[in-house]
Amino acid sequence: MSVLSLLRESLGALVATDAASLEEARADRSGHAATGRPLAVVHAERVEHVQQVMRIATATRTPVVVRGAGTGLAGAANAGTGEIVLSLRRMTAIHEIRPDDLLAVVEPGILNADLNTELADHGLWWPPDPASRDISTVGGNIATGAGGLLCAKYGVVRDAVLGVDLVLADGRLLHLGHRSVKGVTGLDLTALVVGSEGTLGVVVGATLKLRRLVPGETCTVTATFPGVRAAAAASAAVTAAGVQPAIMELMDAASLAAVHALLDLPAPTPGAAQLTIQTDGPAARSEADAIAAILQAHDGVTVVSHDREEGERLLAIRRSMHPAMASLGTTLIEDVSVPRSAMPAMFDEIARIEREYGIPIPTVAHAGDGNLHPNFVFEGTETPPHVWAAADELFRAAIRLGGTLTGEHGIGVLKRRWLADELGDDQWQLQRQIAAVFDPLGILNPGKVFSPDA
Amino acid sequence: MSVLSLLRESLGALVATDAASLEEARADRSGHAATGRPLAVVHAERVEHVQQVMRIATATRTPVVVRGAGTGLAGAANAGTGEIVLSLRRMTAIHEIRPDDLLAVVEPGILNADLNTELADHGLWWPPDPASRDISTVGGNIATGAGGLLCAKYGVVRDAVLGVDLVLADGRLLHLGHRSVKGVTGLDLTALVVGSEGTLGVVVGATLKLRRLVPGETCTVTATFPGVRAAAAASAAVTAAGVQPAIMELMDAASLAAVHALLDLPAPTPGAAQLTIQTDGPAARSEADAIAAILQAHDGVTVVSHDREEGERLLAIRRSMHPAMASLGTTLIEDVSVPRSAMPAMFDEIARIEREYGIPIPTVAHAGDGNLHPNFVFEGTETPPHVWAAADELFRAAIRLGGTLTGEHGIGVLKRRWLADELGDDQWQLQRQIAAVFDPLGILNPGKVFSPDA
Ligand SMILES: Cc1cc2nc3c(=O)[nH]c(=O)nc-3n(C[C@H](O)[C@H](O)[C@H](O)COP(=O)(O)OP(=O)(O)OC[C@H]3O[C@@H](n4cnc5c(N)ncnc54)[C@H](O)[C@@H]3O)c2cc1C
Ligand SMILES: Cc1cc2nc3c(=O)[nH]c(=O)nc-3n(C[C@H](O)[C@H](O)[C@H](O)COP(=O)(O)OP(=O)(O)OC[C@H]3O[C@@H](n4cnc5c(N)ncnc54)[C@H](O)[C@@H]3O)c2cc1C
Repeated sequence: MSVLSLLRESLGALVATDAASLEEARADRSGHAATGRPLAVVHAERVEHVQQVMRIATATRTPVVVRGAGTGLAGAANAGTGEIVLSLRRMTAIHEIRPDDLLAVVEPGILNADLNTELADHGLWWPPDPASRDISTVGGNIATGAGGLLCAKYGVVRDAVLGVDLVLADGRLLHLGHRSVKGVTGLDLTALVVGSEGTLGVVVGATLKLRRLVPGETCTVTATFPGVRAAAAASAAVTAAGVQPAIMELMDAASLAAVHALLDLPAPTPGAAQLTIQTDGPAARSEADAIAAILQAHDGVTVVSHDREEGERLLAIRRSMHPAMASLGTTLIEDVSVPRSAMPAMFDEIARIEREYGIPIPTVAHAGDGNLHPNFVFEGTETPPHVWAAADELFRAAIRLGGTLTGEHGIGVLKRRWLADELGDDQWQLQRQIAAVFDPLGILNPGKVFSPDA
Repeated sequence: MSVLSLLRESLGALVATDAASLEEARADRSGHAATGRPLAVVHAERVEHVQQVMRIATATRTPVVVRGAGTGLAGAANAGTGEIVLSLRRMTAIHEIRPDDLLAVVEPGILNADLNTELADHGLWWPPDPASRDISTVGGNIATGAGGLLCAKYGVVRDAVLGVDLVLADGRLLHLGHRSVKGVTGLDLTALVVGSEGTLGVVVGATLKLRRLVPGETCTVTATFPGVRAAAAASAAVTAAGVQPAIMELMDAASLAAVHALLDLPAPTPGAAQLTIQTDGPAARSEADAIAAILQAHDGVTVVSHDREEGERLLAIRRSMHPAMASLGTTLIEDVSVPRSAMPAMFDEIARIEREYGIPIPTVAHAGDGNLHPNFVFEGTETPPHVWAAADELFRAAIRLGGTLTGEHGIGVLKRRWLADELGDDQWQLQRQIAAVFDPLGILNPGKVFSPDA
């Protein structure tokens, strides 16, 4: 029997093969798509459905691409010829919310924002807040090890997951981690699954570590600087001074110009860069004042607001970056991360690459943790070679500065070419071997992350 | 040539074979010792020494037990017949302290307290604070995934390590992680090494994530309760109320009695249990008042102190638990961890086991994160069968309550018998296979953690 017949026999109406479903599964939000169309999209509604798919895939040695909401930016969820797409998007149940233990047990397909709406009723939240939180799944957040605007203060996904239920390539179900906040029983496989981009298994459930909603007001400081280097130096000075903002976002001149054009706002001062900083909690006001003083000492022109809605309006400029870039053409969003003190040097490198390659690289940064998103904009669906060459320089610069080629988006297909450069050949081999322990036949997301040929 | 000759030829005076050195390496602080004496203790002073030892061990298939300060409580660093002991205790350099990036790069043999003394000069600290911080190494802390008194608020080792340099069983050196706070390049092997108890490789360097010293005062609340269940319920209520103490330690009546006897203090009220809670940071005082109110509502008789030294004196009672037990006989210190709301139920289970086995089980707890240390005291050096039977009941109860058999001490030799019970057979096998990727010949700490025969 064909793979498709086996899937249909076992999973019936959960198996979609209409053209629209197959076409959609070819691409995530990176602007890149797989070659050809997948075999089928299976919409799992229960853990057993996932196990059935994996058993059939193992028996027939068919590759499986696990998919949340498809908002990834590395091509990691793109599915092509001969592949089964296993979508978790329908598994959205919240099994448990425990204010006393500060944990929730959820299915992987729930959207981050939907979860947080439910949690808010209990005075709780799950801190990871990718800019895509309204459209990305908790399972996808876990599989990519997502970060977000608030993570300098409140941590990334890896800090917010106590355990995961994982279906292996052969269909077996493992329970990793526990409900207690502490535990060192054996190897920390929960941490290994975080950021594994669908290569180790299918996350079918998660025990999440929650926080209480932060009481008190939120203050927002915006500061304009003569140039991006000054803004980067000022944000590094905030970190070095020991004040902890909840959010610290940096936008360079090209980013500001693009967003202002998109939103029909008056054009900003040419060359000027901007920091948008929020403080929260009991000391929000005094921290905002302390930060403003530091920024002024670094030539920043600052405005402090104590109004939460005004703060949201100011942040909306930052949040419009993605649509602003999309309005200009196809965008390759990069994601390097460096030690915070190296941010000015990293911006120097970006300026150098812009000059050498004669292309603009509008850049925004989660400056609180040294994570930069340089954007390459071009026409068409294929990244041109000179853009890859410039990106290559970017990665090497970040690694030289003690950083990494991806702070939060992952490797997927778009960065697998550089993975061994950062890990070294020995570690790269070791990681592949570890993945093979989980997935000996190599049917989980083959060609992603560890595939050297790109 | 014999293994010893090879070691001597290559490492000369770094190789110790005197009786005292060999005898010392047989045991950690668990009260248990390996059978027989190891071949030699090699005192590595540089990364190359570690690599040389591992190359010789691989070439001759000789087992290696890596050792920090030997303060472990699971027998994980115990070395016996035919084994090489590789001591990191002399590698104590601090290569770098970066207040701007909040990181330090250190060698593994430095004592936790020595590091923190140096860091304090820069206004910094490394949060993991096992009660053994004065006598345990940073490398040992990493290899065990240590916790401590402050970890409910400031995190455990896994939250405080950005990267490690790891020498593999065959002598190759890997650099895992990076200096940036964010990074999702490939699998998170740094997290996998944390808590791996010397089975994956030798940690020869670490990039640590630091915090600034917490400004403001420290307040201490002590509360006495009619019984341990009331104390446990009160501490769970503090967590559930969303106040975050820096420290929240619980002592039951038997523990209090033992410590008071050791310190020559007047005997406490029979049956009474105690919580010692500290708050710190800008809101320390108001948090202490809020906590005191919650404790009073749970029948606690409270005393609040704003004096830091008085606070240290009060905590000294808790810190004297280990010597107090040691003064009574040989101690098996257990380490179960449960969701915080399950603490009262866990204390009920302990009371039941005490009754059924007719033995006292003095228990203290890091109540802020649900981590209990029940103590079994006996005569002689071998844990008697009925104590193991009682401990077995304890582990099963913790797992039933959603917890784990070890919150911070690890598996070592003492708990390997129960590892598969918690992980399940499939996960246990998978973990073994992962360890084998790092150490295909099985020469790193064989018989520890994953060895089923105990
Ligand atoms: C506008 C915009 C803003 C963004 N901002 C951020 C940001 O601030 N921070 C950030 O980190 N990312 C950001 N992203 C990227 C993306 O949203 C995140 O990576 C997100 O975590 C992906 O979730 P998803 O459900 O869409 O996963 P998908 O894109 O469907 O999948 C991503 C990867 O996870 C795997 N996967 C998904 N679900 C599972 C599962 N249940 N089990 C196993 N593997 C699974 C897939 O195989 C794939 O490898 C942004 C994207 C957009 C479009
Ligand atoms: C009085 C007392 C109080 C304690 N309190 C606590 C507490 O509050 N919290 C807590 O978590 N623990 C506590 N412990 C246990 C112990 O101190 C910790 O586990 C500590 O982290 C061990 O460090 P060490 O240097 O002594 O390691 P060792 O005992 O020498 O080794 C422990 C394990 O780590 C491995 N190892 C050591 N160094 C390396 C390295 N460089 N590379 C690879 N593997 C290595 C060893 O092989 C072994 O498996 C306490 C112990 C005592 C005696």
